[in-house]
Amino acid sequence: MKHVHYSDVAQEDVAQGAKGAKIRWVITEKDGAPTFIMRQFEIAAGGFTPLHEHAWEHEAFILSGAGAIIGGDREEAFKPGDAVFIPGGEKHQFKNTGKEPVSMLCLIPARKSV
Amino acid sequence: MKHVHYSDVAQEDVAQGAKGAKIRWVITEKDGAPTFIMRQFEIAAGGFTPLHEHAWEHEAFILSGAGAIIGGDREEAFKPGDAVFIPGGEKHQFKNTGKEPVSMLCLIPARKSV
Repeated sequence: MKHVHYSDVAQEDVAQGAKGAKIRWVITEKDGAPTFIMRQFEIAAGGFTPLHEHAWEHEAFILSGAGAIIGGDREEAFKPGDAVFIPGGEKHQFKNTGKEPVSMLCLIPARKSV
Repeated sequence: MKHVHYSDVAQEDVAQGAKGAKIRWVITEKDGAPTFIMRQFEIAAGGFTPLHEHAWEHEAFILSGAGAIIGGDREEAFKPGDAVFIPGGEKHQFKNTGKEPVSMLCLIPARKSV
């Protein structure tokens, strides 16, 4: 097994199209994960992840903070304990609309080419 | 998108071999999840999930509470924010060793036969 506190994983900036968003790759192919991988995001107040779409799905879980999720043509407020499924091909974005950082998990299928 | 607070999902007892453990199926194939599915577990003080092994992997994240995880021949204490990867074929068990309930996410590959 791999057993780690998420905060002990190195934090990286989220690529272009984001503001104030950082990512930790918590469980990945490098750990032997064959099917899906776990990332933790931190989004600063006023920050957001890219508004984009791609072929693969997201499964997210809000750990702390408050914000809004765009999924397709809907925009909804989120709070801790909320779970979000974004199917492949749906435009989406996570935004921090509060004063505290947003911390969330966001899992994706394993990248078979990695 | 599907957007739900985990506590709004119906809770079920965990099958045999467990004590004081309940499960919510938060994001599943019924939501269109093609690759992996998200469950939330609540384990009462003194409770545990089954000590077992199976071909598929787990990716877990501790939301609250304190306990111990058995993975293979190791047993380690866990705390909120800990992430655990259990590869397929490895014996494992989550135990609540504290006084408060343990709440955790545990994700598995989609059940292709469902």
